[in-house]
Amino acid sequence: MSEPEGSRKYGEIVRLALERGFFMPSCEIYGDAPAGFWDYGPLGVDLKRKFIEFWRRELVKRDGMLEIDGSQVLSKKVFQASGHLESFVDPIAKCEQCRAIYRLDKLIEEKTGIHVPERMNLEEMKRLIEEHDIKCGKCGGKLIDLSHFNMMFRLGVGVIGADAYLRPETCQNIFIDFLRIHKTMRRNLPFAIAQVGKSFRNEISPRQGLLRMREFYQAEIEVFFNPKKANEFPKADPMMDYELRLKPLGRDETIEITCKEALDSGLISSRLIAYYLSLIQQFYEKAGISREKIRLRQLGDDEKAFYAVEAWDLEVETSLGWIELVACNNRGGHDLGGHQRFSGHEMEVLDDGEKVLPHVFELSMGVDRSIYCILENALDLEGGKPVLRLPPHFAPIEVAVLPLLSKEPFTSKAREIYEMLKLDFDVEYDESGSIGRRYLRFDEVGVPICITIDHQTLEDDTVTLRFRDSSMQLRVDLGELAETIKNHLG
Amino acid sequence: MSEPEGSRKYGEIVRLALERGFFMPSCEIYGDAPAGFWDYGPLGVDLKRKFIEFWRRELVKRDGMLEIDGSQVLSKKVFQASGHLESFVDPIAKCEQCRAIYRLDKLIEEKTGIHVPERMNLEEMKRLIEEHDIKCGKCGGKLIDLSHFNMMFRLGVGVIGADAYLRPETCQNIFIDFLRIHKTMRRNLPFAIAQVGKSFRNEISPRQGLLRMREFYQAEIEVFFNPKKANEFPKADPMMDYELRLKPLGRDETIEITCKEALDSGLISSRLIAYYLSLIQQFYEKAGISREKIRLRQLGDDEKAFYAVEAWDLEVETSLGWIELVACNNRGGHDLGGHQRFSGHEMEVLDDGEKVLPHVFELSMGVDRSIYCILENALDLEGGKPVLRLPPHFAPIEVAVLPLLSKEPFTSKAREIYEMLKLDFDVEYDESGSIGRRYLRFDEVGVPICITIDHQTLEDDTVTLRFRDSSMQLRVDLGELAETIKNHLG
Repeated sequence: MSEPEGSRKYGEIVRLALERGFFMPSCEIYGDAPAGFWDYGPLGVDLKRKFIEFWRRELVKRDGMLEIDGSQVLSKKVFQASGHLESFVDPIAKCEQCRAIYRLDKLIEEKTGIHVPERMNLEEMKRLIEEHDIKCGKCGGKLIDLSHFNMMFRLGVGVIGADAYLRPETCQNIFIDFLRIHKTMRRNLPFAIAQVGKSFRNEISPRQGLLRMREFYQAEIEVFFNPKKANEFPKADPMMDYELRLKPLGRDETIEITCKEALDSGLISSRLIAYYLSLIQQFYEKAGISREKIRLRQLGDDEKAFYAVEAWDLEVETSLGWIELVACNNRGGHDLGGHQRFSGHEMEVLDDGEKVLPHVFELSMGVDRSIYCILENALDLEGGKPVLRLPPHFAPIEVAVLPLLSKEPFTSKAREIYEMLKLDFDVEYDESGSIGRRYLRFDEVGVPICITIDHQTLEDDTVTLRFRDSSMQLRVDLGELAETIKNHLG
Repeated sequence: MSEPEGSRKYGEIVRLALERGFFMPSCEIYGDAPAGFWDYGPLGVDLKRKFIEFWRRELVKRDGMLEIDGSQVLSKKVFQASGHLESFVDPIAKCEQCRAIYRLDKLIEEKTGIHVPERMNLEEMKRLIEEHDIKCGKCGGKLIDLSHFNMMFRLGVGVIGADAYLRPETCQNIFIDFLRIHKTMRRNLPFAIAQVGKSFRNEISPRQGLLRMREFYQAEIEVFFNPKKANEFPKADPMMDYELRLKPLGRDETIEITCKEALDSGLISSRLIAYYLSLIQQFYEKAGISREKIRLRQLGDDEKAFYAVEAWDLEVETSLGWIELVACNNRGGHDLGGHQRFSGHEMEVLDDGEKVLPHVFELSMGVDRSIYCILENALDLEGGKPVLRLPPHFAPIEVAVLPLLSKEPFTSKAREIYEMLKLDFDVEYDESGSIGRRYLRFDEVGVPICITIDHQTLEDDTVTLRFRDSSMQLRVDLGELAETIKNHLG
């Protein structure tokens, strides 16, 4: 992800977020609180909830997946088996003089232009530091104490303080619950288990609001399959003509290529993977992101997570550059194999009479980042005043109910209409300021419909509907109001 | 809560939970994983989701509350201000010989029958131990190292490991975000902020599945009000004749009393509190718990949380005795006052031109416990085979689609119907076993409607609907299927 600072759109989203209740830093009133923790305000909660419902409908339900919701605190053993205790680390160094701490790989890349791959050891980094005479950027001091910093949060359970960790990815619950789910839910391979929830990473430098947090929402999907049969996947048939937007390894541009062509040319290794890559690209298209701002970028060996054998990142282009929203990893037999070894429980299951250790293909989605991209994508600054052109199914407030004047009997009538609608729609009542200013205020937070209660309402029980995107106005009878709103929201 | 072991209903719920995917211990495949952590399986996820939607609709939306979703990791300062660092503790002692650890207050109560109030100090407890010669229950060893154990989980943030804690209650986000929410959301007192999410308590002895967990879901509502105006609360008017089921302090029985009578007699201190107590009692009635199994029990000084000035527990009667589901606390000015002192930010807001530090009344709901009670309440063991009579709006699976025989063309036709319904309902497809056994299997997990695809379906495109509660069967044309299901589910 590139990071040009001061993008106007980024700044505008942050302003909106803080001033209108989308999101804000956690513990804001305590100035010295640790960075990288954020709260969703009232509008953010509704947007996030709708995004997750959309994920559940378009991926989990459409594909017939099973969903679980597991504990965030997990036993140490889980991360011995998963490899996180050993490998989920960042290299760091400290300044001998001013004690500033640096993420070593990033510092070397910045100072030398040399790409530091995921698996470079500390000895090699030390050599690069000496060779290029890299010093502390703040005081010029010597860099010492090169070490690997584990990004998991440790905690002690019970009075004795038994080692446990906050999960750094939601999927570990899915792997350790796999056996029971497979047994109790009577599914045959291939099938998928999904989970949405919080994950935690002790980032050395959290930054940019929702884009790199220490506590964040993931929505993960783990597809379990027989590796010998990844190409026997009839569900993929209807996808064969769907055009993927791929940025293959070693190519500078994004190509449009059908699933069938990508499979025939060997770009994608199996029909199962082609199907799920299509599903996730379609998801963001349906979420309102235009095709040309979406790509699936293939990762090389030096970029892949330590458990991945084949990896594509779904990225979306924003004013801050391309942002990774979904890591699509073929994790192979790493996970079930690891838990089998460490737990002593056999993870092989029967597939058509043959015992097989399932492999895993995952769609690991960053929810907060996706929400940032949806907000930025919807933000229209063309007309001077910001308008948030959110698709109606993501709008935190669907309907604003506005008395023309802030006095009786307009306010009572408006409150009556608010009460009538509040259980069926997400409704807000507002009586303060001129009607024009209120329209602008609701445009800014993406409300698709404003309802105005005016003089005529008092005479004939009709109200004015004003639509955000067309600014068109429509006179509607109260008896038809709910139905009209429902139709417009789709 | 009383705890007779071996209740048949409790055992049956646990069996169902494990065998059918409602919930299961976290890290189950690792035998030595810490206790008190649970995962929701596929059916549990859907039940919980529907319960939370019901909470959102019946409390948050009905009352026009604002909802937030804040970080679970909070800065140390928050808990200095809230008093949790000092007061959220349990007294413990260790056996000198076998190192067993005891929760001291519970141990003394068990051995002597003497009630140990929340605030008894360690000196007094030591005196009681000596006086009554209380020893280790396992080996008879001497109890030593009397101390207070803080139940918050500590973690270190960043490379330097700055002190932070997992929140022991969700409401702290609400208090520290109060200022920004009040400013940005343009609300006047009184108004409420709600939040649902995970909380964490390092319980010394977690037990009984969902009833005492170390990581659990809370749904909390914090009502901010001007303490001088708790009795000026017009929203309470329509509630005045509603009959509360109260168990006042010092009384052995539950009384039925209208809000008005409870206020007139001074049992409840304000109309605002009477209104919210009514709302929460109504919530569980609407959730399908019968009135006589619900009570609001008033807490005495020795039972109340350290921050409460007036407290009622909403309790529901189960086979395990009365279980506390919602703590209804008047927290007074404790929270905003504390954060004002520690943060230096003024928490007073304008109310009709007068500056006031809002007081807080809370409805702090245990979600997992509520789900246990709803499951137990729905479990019908009368007919021999268990039937889960869940209200349709809580049913994890709404419709089961069953080919009469597990062969073509029944299975293709059934799959076609499954595909037709899957995005609008929570549907499951099942072809294994006799149709009668499949009915029983879906009765057991609360599915209200089974659809059978039989010989006649192939001729005239009609299917049989079989209803769980009446066992009634109905022949329906495929064209009317969705509508018929929708009507039955309500």
